[in-house]
Parts: sequence; C-alpha cells; structure tokens
Amino acid sequence: MPTVSDIRTNHLSLQIRSGVSTLSQNSKKADAVLSNMRLSTYQELEPTARVGRGLSCTNYCIIFAVLFGALLAILETEPTLYDPFRGLFEVAEGVLTILFSVEYAARLWSAADAPGDASSLAKRGRFFISLAGLLDLVVLLAAWAPFFTANLALLRIVRLARIARLAKLGRFSRAAEHLHYAVTTRAYELLLAVSLALILLVAGATALYWAEGTVQPDKFGSIPRALWWSAVTLTTIGYGDVSPVTPLGKFIAVLVAVAGIGLVALPTGILASGFSEAVQRDRKADNQ
Amino acid sequence: MPTVSDIRTNHLSLQIRSGVSTLSQNSKKADAVLSNMRLSTYQELEPTARVGRGLSCTNYCIIFAVLFGALLAILETEPTLYDPFRGLFEVAEGVLTILFSVEYAARLWSAADAPGDASSLAKRGRFFISLAGLLDLVVLLAAWAPFFTANLALLRIVRLARIARLAKLGRFSRAAEHLHYAVTTRAYELLLAVSLALILLVAGATALYWAEGTVQPDKFGSIPRALWWSAVTLTTIGYGDVSPVTPLGKFIAVLVAVAGIGLVALPTGILASGFSEAVQRDRKADNQ
Amino acid sequence: MPTVSDIRTNHLSLQIRSGVSTLSQNSKKADAVLSNMRLSTYQELEPTARVGRGLSCTNYCIIFAVLFGALLAILETEPTLYDPFRGLFEVAEGVLTILFSVEYAARLWSAADAPGDASSLAKRGRFFISLAGLLDLVVLLAAWAPFFTANLALLRIVRLARIARLAKLGRFSRAAEHLHYAVTTRAYELLLAVSLALILLVAGATALYWAEGTVQPDKFGSIPRALWWSAVTLTTIGYGDVSPVTPLGKFIAVLVAVAGIGLVALPTGILASGFSEAVQRDRKADNQ
Amino acid sequence: MPTVSDIRTNHLSLQIRSGVSTLSQNSKKADAVLSNMRLSTYQELEPTARVGRGLSCTNYCIIFAVLFGALLAILETEPTLYDPFRGLFEVAEGVLTILFSVEYAARLWSAADAPGDASSLAKRGRFFISLAGLLDLVVLLAAWAPFFTANLALLRIVRLARIARLAKLGRFSRAAEHLHYAVTTRAYELLLAVSLALILLVAGATALYWAEGTVQPDKFGSIPRALWWSAVTLTTIGYGDVSPVTPLGKFIAVLVAVAGIGLVALPTGILASGFSEAVQRDRKADNQ
Repeated sequence: MPTVSDIRTNHLSLQIRSGVSTLSQNSKKADAVLSNMRLSTYQELEPTARVGRGLSCTNYCIIFAVLFGALLAILETEPTLYDPFRGLFEVAEGVLTILFSVEYAARLWSAADAPGDASSLAKRGRFFISLAGLLDLVVLLAAWAPFFTANLALLRIVRLARIARLAKLGRFSRAAEHLHYAVTTRAYELLLAVSLALILLVAGATALYWAEGTVQPDKFGSIPRALWWSAVTLTTIGYGDVSPVTPLGKFIAVLVAVAGIGLVALPTGILASGFSEAVQRDRKADNQ
Repeated sequence: MPTVSDIRTNHLSLQIRSGVSTLSQNSKKADAVLSNMRLSTYQELEPTARVGRGLSCTNYCIIFAVLFGALLAILETEPTLYDPFRGLFEVAEGVLTILFSVEYAARLWSAADAPGDASSLAKRGRFFISLAGLLDLVVLLAAWAPFFTANLALLRIVRLARIARLAKLGRFSRAAEHLHYAVTTRAYELLLAVSLALILLVAGATALYWAEGTVQPDKFGSIPRALWWSAVTLTTIGYGDVSPVTPLGKFIAVLVAVAGIGLVALPTGILASGFSEAVQRDRKADNQ
Repeated sequence: MPTVSDIRTNHLSLQIRSGVSTLSQNSKKADAVLSNMRLSTYQELEPTARVGRGLSCTNYCIIFAVLFGALLAILETEPTLYDPFRGLFEVAEGVLTILFSVEYAARLWSAADAPGDASSLAKRGRFFISLAGLLDLVVLLAAWAPFFTANLALLRIVRLARIARLAKLGRFSRAAEHLHYAVTTRAYELLLAVSLALILLVAGATALYWAEGTVQPDKFGSIPRALWWSAVTLTTIGYGDVSPVTPLGKFIAVLVAVAGIGLVALPTGILASGFSEAVQRDRKADNQ
Repeated sequence: MPTVSDIRTNHLSLQIRSGVSTLSQNSKKADAVLSNMRLSTYQELEPTARVGRGLSCTNYCIIFAVLFGALLAILETEPTLYDPFRGLFEVAEGVLTILFSVEYAARLWSAADAPGDASSLAKRGRFFISLAGLLDLVVLLAAWAPFFTANLALLRIVRLARIARLAKLGRFSRAAEHLHYAVTTRAYELLLAVSLALILLVAGATALYWAEGTVQPDKFGSIPRALWWSAVTLTTIGYGDVSPVTPLGKFIAVLVAVAGIGLVALPTGILASGFSEAVQRDRKADNQ
C-alpha cells in the first residue's frame, strides 16, 4: 500500500520527467526536487523506512559489497594469494572504498528525512554519533588510511578494521536483534549458569595445578597456566597440547570433564531456548 | 484392500496360467499380457504405487544390492583387501552392473504406467530426465565405464561414483524428506543462526591472526589459514594440529571457544526440533 | 500391606521359633518349614516379588558384591597393583565366587516359587534358560574356570567375563528398561537419523579419500582408512592422529564437520526425549 | 518500605548524631545504641534479612573483595607475575585478610540478631558451626597461617584454600540453590543415566584393553589405563595422547564413541531441564 510520501514522490518524479522547463519557477521547484530525491534516498538506504516491503535494491547491493569486501580483506592476508594478484586486490579495494564513501555521504545527507521533529542538522548529528554511523565512519577512515600514512604497523591493524564492515550487515539483519533478545530475557539464568561454569573452571585448574604442578611445570606450574587446560577440557575441544600424565591427575581430569559437560551445556541450552523464543515472537508479530 | 488394477492383474495372470493356447486370439491377448506385466513391474519397482502396503520384495532386493554395492566400492579402495581378492571383487561388481542395468531398463519400460494422462513416451521421457532417473543413468554409465575407457584417472573418479548409488535409497526412505522438511520450515532461523556462527568464525580467525600471526606464521599467518583453527575450535573437534601458544592467543581462544559453543549449538537445536516435527507430522498423517 | 503369603511366612516362622519338638509331626512340618524357607528365599532374591517394598537386604548385599567384584576384576588387570597384592586379590575373588555360587543355587532352588501354574521343575528350567539365569551361569563358570584349566589365553578372556557380572545389576535397575523403551518407541526416528549420519560418514570419508588419498596414503589412502577420520570428526572427538593437511582437504573437512554436528545431534536428541518420556511414564504408573 | 526495625534504627541513629551527652542516662542508652548497631550490622551482612530489597552496599563490597582475593590467589601461583610484584601481592593479601577478619568478627557478633528464640550465645554458636561459618573460619585461618608457621608445603596448600573463598559467594547467589534443586528433583533419572554412562565407560575400556592391550601396553595394558581413553572419548574431548591404532581397535572405538554420544548427553539434558525448571519456579515465587 503506497503511503502519502510515496504518492508525493511518484507525483513529483512525474513532474520531473514531464520536464521542468520554465526557469521562473526553478528556485522553488529545484528545492522540491532535491527534497524528494533526499526522501527517496533515505527510503532506499534505510530498511526501517520500508517496513513490510523488504529490502530495497540498493540494500542488496550494499550487502553484496560488504560481503565481497570482507572476502577481499580475508584473502588479502594470505601472501600466496595477495602477492601475485596485488593489482587486482588494490583496484577492487579502491572501487569499494569509493562506493562506501558515496554511501556514507548519502546516508548523512538523507538522515535529515529520518522520522522525528528535530531540525535537519540535529538529525544528521544524531546519525553521525549513532553506533551504525560511527562504525561506518571508522571503517571508511580505515579504507582511506593508506592515503594519509605509510606507517606499516598502523596499516596492518587498519586493514583488519575493514573486516568490521561485516557489522554493517547488522543494519539489515534480525539475527543480531534475536540474539540480543535471547541474551537480555535470559540474562539472569545465563549469569547464574556462566558463574557456575567459571567456578568449575577455576576449581578444575586449581585441582590440576595441585596434582600435576610439579610434574609438568610448564603446563600446570601455575593456576593461570592450568586454566588453559581447564578451558580446553570443559569445552570438550581437547587439543591435546596439555593433558594430565599422572594417575591422580587423570582421575581428577575425568571428574572435572564429566562435571563440566553438564555445566557448560547449561548456558547453551538457555541461549538456544531464548533465541528460538525470539524468532517465534517475531514471526507472530509479522503475522498480525 | 485390492484396487481395481490389482483385480485386473490377478484376473489376467489367472488367464495366463490357465493357458492361452488358441493362436487366433494371440495378437490381442499378447498385448494385454504385456501391458499387465508392465503394470506389475511398475508396482513392484515404485514404492509410491504401493501406498499402505510397504515395500515390495523387489524393493528389498534392490536396497540390499545398493548397500552391498556401496560396501564393495568402499572395500575396493583398500589395496590390502583388493589386491588379493581382485577376482571376487570384479565378479561381484559385474553381477551388480548387470542387475542395475536390468533394473534401469525395467524402470524405463514400466514408466509408461506412471499415473497421469500423458502418452507412454512422454512418461518415459519424464522418468529419463527426473532426478532419480538421471542419477540411475550416471551410476550405470560409471559401472559400464571400464568397458569403454582405460583412462585410469577417469576410472578412479568413476569408481567413486558407484558410492553415489547410496542416493538411490532416497527413493525408498522418508529420512531425506524429513530432513528437507526440517530445513525448509526452519530456513529463516537456520539462516540467521548460521550467519551468526559464520561471523564468529571470521571474527575468531581475525583475532588469532592478529594475536599469533607473527608467532606461528605457518598456522596463523593469514586469515584463511586461521580459519582452519577457528572451524576446528568452534565445532569443538580440536585436532590439536593448530593451537595458540602465547598467553594472549590462549585468552582470545578461550573467549572464542566459549562464545562458539552457544552459537554453534543454535543451528543444531533448530534442525533437531524441525526434524522431530517432520516425523510427528508424518506419523499423524499415517494414522489418519 | 502384608500379603497372604507374608502372613503365612510370619505365622510359620513363629511356629519354627516356638520350637517344633514333637517328632511325630516332623515329616509334614519339615516339609512346610522347607517350603516356607523357599518362599522367603524367593522373596528375598527376586525384586519383582516385593513390588512397593523396594529392594531387600539380600538384594543390596548382592549389588554391593557385584560392584566390588567388578572393581576387583578391573584392578586385577593392572600389573602394578596385581603383582604386589596377588594374595589379597585371590582371597577376595574366592570369597566372591563362593558367594555367587550360593546365590545361584538359592535362585535355582527357590525358582519353584515363581508365579505361574507350571511344576517346580518346569519353573526351575525356565529360570535356567532365562537370560538372567544363563548370564549368572556363564559368569559363575568363568569364576570356577581356574580350577578346571591352566590355559592362560582362555583364562585371560574368562577373567574379563567377570566384568559381565555388572549386567546382573540389570535385574535390580529400571535404567535398562527405560533405555529399551526409549529405543523401541523411537525406533523409526532413530533408524532414519542414524541412516543419515551413516551416509554422511561414508560421504565424508569418500570426499577426503579423493582429496587427500595421494598426499597422506597411510591415513586417507582408502575409504575404510578415511572412515576412521570421518568417525572421529563427526563425533567431534578429534584425536588429532589424522587430520587433513591440504587447503582443499581442510575446506571439505570443515563442510563435513559442520554438516555432521547437526546430523549426529539428531539421534542424541531423539534418544534423550525417549528416555525422559520413559521415566515420566514410569513415575506416573508408580503414583497410581 | 521501611520496616519497624528500620524506623527504630533511623530514630536511634538520629539520637546518636544529635549527641548523647547526658552521662546520667548513658548506661541504658549505650546498651540501646549497641543493640541497634548490632541489628544494622546483621541486616547489612545477611542478604536473607533484606528480602525484596536486594543486596546491601556491604554485600557488594564483600563480593568484590572475594572476587579480587580469588584473582589474587590465582595470579600469585604464576612465578613470572609473583616474583617481580611480590610486595604488591603481600600488601593486597594483608588488606584482604584484615577485611575478612573484621567481617568474620562482625558476623559472629551480629549473629545474635538472627531470627529465632534462642539466646544470643546459642545463635552465635549456631553460626559458628554452620557450613558458611566454618568455611569463613577455615579460609580466615588459612589467611593467617603464614604468621604461625614457616612450613612451606603446608603454606602451599593453605594458599590454595584462599581460592575456596569463592564459595562464600554461595551466600549471595541463587545459582547453587538452583543447581541443588535440579540435582535433587531429577536425582532418580540422573542416577539411572549416570549408571548407564558408567557401564558404557567400563565396557569400552574392557573392549579396548582386549583389542589393543598387547599392541600399546603402556596405554591399554590394563583396564584402569584404558579407562582414561574411555573417559576422554565418551566426553568427546579426545586429547589424542591415547587412541587405537589397529583396525579392530578403531572399529570398536567408533562403536563406543557413537553409543557414548547418546548416553553421555542424557545426564546433560536431564540437568539442563531441571535447572531451567528451578529458575522458572523461583521467578514465579518472586512475582507472587
């Protein structure tokens, strides 16, 4: 169902197409054209302005560019790939940097059409200091950094910042919202379960420090060192770089591992049920 | 409860047994006999034509042959088994190839009795280009390949194709349907959960590339390399071929592992509940 | 609430205690005394004859003896424990053997009081050929074996048979029943889920045989060899003795592992829900 | 909402502040002041005396001190941290020891205001022999130990006792209660599931002792040794220090691992559902 602003947009774009030739009326009309372009831009960029109509074509383009940029940033770190195709990587990175710069400018400009009674400048300021706005800015500055500095250590970190572009997807996805809902509604249970798991972590490390501290001093010689074993065991990862060798150590390790399976599974179960509830609540809201 | 076609089949097979000696009537009768043999063949081969009566004896024979063939193809790759018993393997493979060739011919011929109003030829064409039909053809060609080529590299891949015969079981099993139902009805949750897991995968790899990239360049020297560690850790497999060695790396690894357990368990839980729902829905439908 | 047979037992034991001195009545009375002793023995040994009154003192003694015997059989295999304390082990084992011999004789004798209309001999025969009876006999023969043979290889296996005494606990525990219920009521789902897991197991092994067969021939040189990797990975154990080394192998391994987590969790979830249902059904039946 | 005792407290503290100068009334007034200070102290220290008003500021200080003390005790065991900052550690430990001594004295003194009809001395005795009281005393004695003995072996264990301070948090947390509720209400299922898991553990160890005992005598040479493998495999940790090498051993290992996944997950599932029920029951009670 077209809203009032849609009708205005369509009406005006019709006027634009039918030719706005009479210069005497230009000042007023140009303003109107610009203001409508800004509104269209806002609606194209901001998914929350298009509730019930899904993502716009521009949104999909940005998602694709973000995913492509992340893939690029990941592959770039591999010398056997980067060295032979350095030119290609730099071109692709340059195109993406320009694209995201245009996107940022468009978002800042069209932020004036965000809902609310504040002035255009105030709305733009609000976007500028919003989490999404600041993230966009940081990632953009990281992309432009090679033009301002030749400090290699800085550039190395800056390159990694480009992977943070993935967080821009949070704007288009409900997954983050659902996880947030799951964590907040189950905060109390999660905190309790995590506390129990942490106490077991420390208790397990202390027990093996006591049992094997003198036998394998480099692995269990202090509780912080034993904590690595404890964490690897309670998560059932078990790399095998650290494991008890004495019968007593093995016996304690089995007790810790068995107790741990149950306790470590508690937060997982709580989070899973919270996530599932968030998705169902969301679906019900969509159906109404 | 015998259907009309069953009655016809029985009636005609009685006629066949009681002797069809008068040659003057042969032309018509031979046609009828053939057409009824074709129908019987179709019903013997196609489980969906026997709803409520389970699998036919022929179906069970084919399932056994498929399982036996897969076992054969698996054991064949082991030189310590294949070299001393090469003759036995080749005989068994030959018998299976003939059996599956006959089965394919019978399916193609009897496809004319598939439900629908199309001509016999159209129905056979439909079977020929169906997923199951093409799979049958590919596996059959793979079995016949040694007679047409001596290219060893090609034959090696072709041999593996024989394991794909296992997919023929999909025709007799509801497991694939249930999994399909589970994946499609929970597609949205699964996509969200998998996205979160993927983002954590990339974030974990990036963090360890940053922390240990210079210490263990062969293992964490680039993000694609660190992704192997990240995947092995988040799935809690933990082979131990790659693990952090610096205190900072270990600390980040623990955070990633703990966050990962919860996120990786999300898709599992969603899939399990979808699968269980599919089975229950199916059972209810059976009871009605 | 005392049953009729209890009253009879008490009544007769009173008579026994008050002195059965008159020899003229002895023949009849001795019979009655014996028959009541047999009934008491049956009730002491057989938990199903004491519904609602829990386990008898004799039951608890047998459970303790079984657990102690299993612990003994486990520790005996450790040379560093067995060699210095050989005498103690042999005495303890001898005492247990006599105790279990007496138990077996008592069970065989009192089996005549099992419910049913058959003759005493028939009831004893039924116990003799029952699963529990045969298990008791086998374990008993294993315990007496050292007196009949000096064949060390045989004795080694026979010794392990003594651990099978643990299965005698099945007589006192409902856990086995619940597991049986869980497996039978969910047989169809379990079969489907296990089939899917097996197909993934074979598919994963085939893929890595294809990808790494020539690189690590001793580990992935044939599908049966690659199946070990596949099983260790899909169960997320990850010993680390076998893991892919090529980028392609690692990529496939990650796909297999991620797909596997979901599929391997399906049977677990099905079994867990079946077990939980069995326990609840049992509790409800107890309350009525 | 201030209770009667609060009003009394406030009223009296006002009197205290406004000056209690007239010495003639001192005896009575000083008593009243002391008795009210004691009540305030009790309410500040004991969370159960502040139902519905959350934790007091003193409680939060103690929680912080306990966590800080545990962190200190953990870091102290690491020589690379302790040796350069020995002085700092000793000062911090000394401050904490004094603080906890004052806390213990305050708890013992104010225990006289615990609810109940017993005399002050009896109430203090009850606190002294309570679990929480004894724990406080043991941890306090451990902290004072360096002043009474120079026995290094003793001091090493005593230092670890300071990590037991974490258990003091049990006084402020409901997590322990919920876990206790989960374990007690599901005791029967948990016992059954754990029994099944233990039997599988022993059976797996016995099978691999039989299959690989002679091949890897140091790892599978006795059942107690094989139990380490069995435990590490059934919990899916898989360090990789022990794994079967023969085809038969690998085959049995896969069967044990697959059976184990299901059985080991049973207790986890039972515990998780019990914990979740405990939290929900608690929340409902809070809402009423």
